[in-house]
Amino acid sequence: MSAFISDNVSGIHPKILDAISKANFGSELPYGFDQWSMQMNSDFSDLFETPVLVIPCTSGTAANCLALSLMVEPINSICVHESSHIFLDESTAPELFTGGARLSPLGGADSKIDLASLQQAMGTIGAMHSAQPGALSLTQSTETGSVYSIDELTQLTKTAKDKGLRTHMDGARFANAVAALDCSPAELTWKAGIDALSFGATKNGAMAAEAVILFKPNLFKSAPYRQKRSGQLLSKQRFLAAQLLAYLKDDLWLVNARTANQKTRNLATGLTNIDGVILPEQITTNMMFVKFTDAQVQRLQKHDLAGYVYANGSMRLCCSWASEESDIAKFIDCVSSAT
Amino acid sequence: MSAFISDNVSGIHPKILDAISKANFGSELPYGFDQWSMQMNSDFSDLFETPVLVIPCTSGTAANCLALSLMVEPINSICVHESSHIFLDESTAPELFTGGARLSPLGGADSKIDLASLQQAMGTIGAMHSAQPGALSLTQSTETGSVYSIDELTQLTKTAKDKGLRTHMDGARFANAVAALDCSPAELTWKAGIDALSFGATKNGAMAAEAVILFKPNLFKSAPYRQKRSGQLLSKQRFLAAQLLAYLKDDLWLVNARTANQKTRNLATGLTNIDGVILPEQITTNMMFVKFTDAQVQRLQKHDLAGYVYANGSMRLCCSWASEESDIAKFIDCVSSAT
Amino acid sequence: MSAFISDNVSGIHPKILDAISKANFGSELPYGFDQWSMQMNSDFSDLFETPVLVIPCTSGTAANCLALSLMVEPINSICVHESSHIFLDESTAPELFTGGARLSPLGGADSKIDLASLQQAMGTIGAMHSAQPGALSLTQSTETGSVYSIDELTQLTKTAKDKGLRTHMDGARFANAVAALDCSPAELTWKAGIDALSFGATKNGAMAAEAVILFKPNLFKSAPYRQKRSGQLLSKQRFLAAQLLAYLKDDLWLVNARTANQKTRNLATGLTNIDGVILPEQITTNMMFVKFTDAQVQRLQKHDLAGYVYANGSMRLCCSWASEESDIAKFIDCVSSAT
Amino acid sequence: MSAFISDNVSGIHPKILDAISKANFGSELPYGFDQWSMQMNSDFSDLFETPVLVIPCTSGTAANCLALSLMVEPINSICVHESSHIFLDESTAPELFTGGARLSPLGGADSKIDLASLQQAMGTIGAMHSAQPGALSLTQSTETGSVYSIDELTQLTKTAKDKGLRTHMDGARFANAVAALDCSPAELTWKAGIDALSFGATKNGAMAAEAVILFKPNLFKSAPYRQKRSGQLLSKQRFLAAQLLAYLKDDLWLVNARTANQKTRNLATGLTNIDGVILPEQITTNMMFVKFTDAQVQRLQKHDLAGYVYANGSMRLCCSWASEESDIAKFIDCVSSAT
Repeated sequence: MSAFISDNVSGIHPKILDAISKANFGSELPYGFDQWSMQMNSDFSDLFETPVLVIPCTSGTAANCLALSLMVEPINSICVHESSHIFLDESTAPELFTGGARLSPLGGADSKIDLASLQQAMGTIGAMHSAQPGALSLTQSTETGSVYSIDELTQLTKTAKDKGLRTHMDGARFANAVAALDCSPAELTWKAGIDALSFGATKNGAMAAEAVILFKPNLFKSAPYRQKRSGQLLSKQRFLAAQLLAYLKDDLWLVNARTANQKTRNLATGLTNIDGVILPEQITTNMMFVKFTDAQVQRLQKHDLAGYVYANGSMRLCCSWASEESDIAKFIDCVSSAT
Repeated sequence: MSAFISDNVSGIHPKILDAISKANFGSELPYGFDQWSMQMNSDFSDLFETPVLVIPCTSGTAANCLALSLMVEPINSICVHESSHIFLDESTAPELFTGGARLSPLGGADSKIDLASLQQAMGTIGAMHSAQPGALSLTQSTETGSVYSIDELTQLTKTAKDKGLRTHMDGARFANAVAALDCSPAELTWKAGIDALSFGATKNGAMAAEAVILFKPNLFKSAPYRQKRSGQLLSKQRFLAAQLLAYLKDDLWLVNARTANQKTRNLATGLTNIDGVILPEQITTNMMFVKFTDAQVQRLQKHDLAGYVYANGSMRLCCSWASEESDIAKFIDCVSSAT
Repeated sequence: MSAFISDNVSGIHPKILDAISKANFGSELPYGFDQWSMQMNSDFSDLFETPVLVIPCTSGTAANCLALSLMVEPINSICVHESSHIFLDESTAPELFTGGARLSPLGGADSKIDLASLQQAMGTIGAMHSAQPGALSLTQSTETGSVYSIDELTQLTKTAKDKGLRTHMDGARFANAVAALDCSPAELTWKAGIDALSFGATKNGAMAAEAVILFKPNLFKSAPYRQKRSGQLLSKQRFLAAQLLAYLKDDLWLVNARTANQKTRNLATGLTNIDGVILPEQITTNMMFVKFTDAQVQRLQKHDLAGYVYANGSMRLCCSWASEESDIAKFIDCVSSAT
Repeated sequence: MSAFISDNVSGIHPKILDAISKANFGSELPYGFDQWSMQMNSDFSDLFETPVLVIPCTSGTAANCLALSLMVEPINSICVHESSHIFLDESTAPELFTGGARLSPLGGADSKIDLASLQQAMGTIGAMHSAQPGALSLTQSTETGSVYSIDELTQLTKTAKDKGLRTHMDGARFANAVAALDCSPAELTWKAGIDALSFGATKNGAMAAEAVILFKPNLFKSAPYRQKRSGQLLSKQRFLAAQLLAYLKDDLWLVNARTANQKTRNLATGLTNIDGVILPEQITTNMMFVKFTDAQVQRLQKHDLAGYVYANGSMRLCCSWASEESDIAKFIDCVSSAT
């Protein structure tokens, strides 16, 4: 298989596996009363420079949908991008967790919701027969590797909040966005109008750990009950918390994301100047869409190195903290030797 | 804290942690297409001597409620014991996963549903104004450490199935029941009329791994979609599958359960003949309820060794595969030195 | 069939049918923008001496469950009496409308929740593994014809509200309770701590009309959207509103209830002194439970005059505004001629 | 207000109101055990020339969503037209009734789903991360007055059923379609591959009555329980059944629809040859979209005669069985006198 089909083909970062091992001694209180779980709110509050409540989850779908369930009533719709993971790749989990709210898919270039689409979607506010826009969910970095600038974020969240909507960020690749924009986690979230963040760790080094980060105290109250209710409260939560603490320690999350972004640029650099290869104008995070010739695609597929080829003919390539230079070299070699 | 308040205070069994480490190399397909996940159906089918579908989950609540969601419609009720974990300790997760079916709590001695209660509960079948009994869920071993005999199981499941109900077993401590009854997993499940089992591993050595085992092919179809929809499909499922495979290998599940059951008997033996201690007539699995004198309780609490004391004055004590003989000795010593 | 099996065997009161006919002219705006619908809030606010929001519904189940859906989150439980209609006779509608909250059935004599049961039920507040008590629902008059005194109501609602619960009254037979207690609608509801009332009209003269009466402005906002979402917003709502307005006009609701209560007393009076008949000590509203001899029961059944006989051997008898004196006489005659 | 803004501005047809009055005598068993309810399956089976189960409802939203809830699991999506009432005008009722299935809006000219869109939507079948297409819902006649031909219906339903989808028809204006196509109800439904029909009566003469007609026996079993669960089971159902029986009697449903369609043509005829008025090429049912000059629109609005003006500048005009020739004349006069 190709090492570049997704960042979730990678394993567990040694420091995180080590943290799991280190947490494995003696008896410990279950259900979040262990020492690691008790440390999470503090460590994440430090990182985000504001008091937060952390709800750890074992999948990105659970984290996103749990966060949304805290924000909307079932009479609401949730504005998402039409290419978002929440809309396309989470089955009907959003409906399950929210008790039957509706996703409202919006357009916008580069997988980013555009302001006009958002404004139009809010046109049904007050119309009794229509789902009532109740939340805005933005993916950062997006499903195609682009990022919202802080200004873009702020404009969208302000527009939404002026109409009473809550704001969520799907940060399955939040670290890659922070690395790309070289700003603080706070600047990309609550300072830009975000109420809750799904802070991804799994794609970026954890085994199975995502954290819902709540910035608004009025979202705190039901959160632990919703965690339990959705089957996300682990008895041995210490091992989930230990992953997240190790992920924060010494900025491993950011180091890994920088590595992943850099590996992607390395892969791009190696593909530059190969006849027939069309690279994107800009590589922002750890994902890029590259056009190859038919011969190149076929050769990649023959050697089981190809990423997923989209309808428009471009191939998605994704690096992670674990991408090997040898795999990059092998990929480049395969492309360049196609005729 | 007391080492005996629950079996979920234990950590990860070395063999299971080792399996996680061993699975941590190179790139692997996500979402269950890894080699470990692909092995699960085969290994569990061998164990249960019949073709099964395995849906791995990260919590017992998720496993139970996911299993039930495959069995009932939202117009149904689910017959459970009034002291069951599903009824008392899973928040409104059963309602969430099933889309609003209702739990119908039944009575019965020793935390076991009695036949008359079940028969009475089914009296509303066909009554348009009432929730329609749609499934029976039995806990094996039960929340107080008792076990259903094969005959008891068979009689209950037959009664339920004659009326069209599906049958589920909450096997968070299934291994302890198998160890206690010295029978095969098949005999305790599908041969005794069980359609689906929540096969617990977390309390018995895993980090966070439970498996829904489906015995009826007509339950298979929706199961993977329900897994995804409930946030239980992990991208790096290899590490969940690796835990479960290691748990089965060389009967680790059974060895651990036997150890836990034996440790419980050891603890009881040590408490025998201490003045004021009233032991249960029989110790079946890894949990027992013991009455102590007030002085004994206070001394245990003072030394942070006490288990949970119930309304009736008895203390729940629970051993696991990891219970240390030194902790057992310390506990006994504390009790015997109380005045 | 017996005229006394339920008050819902009656038809439409002539004044209400007349109101439907009178509303049947010309074109009228749909979905509640007709003149009758626009009048409802005003008329009901007058009746209850406080500003209310009225949500008309076509069934009692819909009214109760819609009201509850405005009060609780899906992590909540709703305290109800174990013999309540909401618990026993509304299928899993409460779970549907609330998105999966749980009913918590409480005990108490005369179908009235007793304070100790309520206090005990609230013991799980703050326990993460348990459904969180979120609302208290009281039936007035109850499913067996008794009534809560204003003091009893006040004590229960105060206890609930002190712990943050909302309070609902199932008033399918609210009119009968007002008639029995000879107090004002305000005194029996918001002045006694009730946040929302299901104000029944169907059993007491309407064709199919129940009104959710909201006393708390913070319950208003989502209510119209929940009405629509649950299929309770009629296009020709004028005919539903017209029923409710006619029901209020000249206190028809109260006149009818007084009649129904009186008819019940008349029936009881006629049964007095018949050998073998055991009447209740007190007849409060329009329902009573009477014990007959076996011969009497059989004779009533033979002549298709019997009400429903409960497990304890007593027969439920229910009068309505439409009960005929001739039917009362026939019933008494049948009983007295049994040997 | 304009008499032509919708067909639901009309009142109750005299024959239907008369039927309600005639059903208003004596005591009758509640909850569907009255003589009128007991007659429905037989009368509708005659009309549709096949055994059907009828579930009466009080709103179109309830009928549609109840029907869909019988057809899909919560993991499913339901293919609907992007301009359908179910998608645009039923709030999140589809999500509520189905327990969180998703609507999948498809394109197609004239408000009719086109085959290619349907085929494309079914492309996610088997993809674990995507909602699984589970039902196809077609509106007949459509929300803009067009109709599917029998061939079009058959092709769509066959395509859907070949992939395992169920098929529903939103027939809020089913009668208008039958009148337009001059075919039998059977030919437009089960013979064309429809599993369940929402048979509308409210817009076409009833007070508040819609009927879910189930053609497939395997949909029957849960239907009565789902009716109860969704608050659609009326205690005095006799008055709902009486409306539906009267609606069928002497083909009142068809007579009314023919009248409504004819009135629409009459209105169009009157508008023909007025300068600036652009009529549709064809008037199929009882709804048409007409373009007027700005002056005409303003004059209509000034006299409170205008229908709803869409974004494309055309005005929706809708006639019913009750449309008055005098209102038609007044409308035409207003348009023709605009300068």
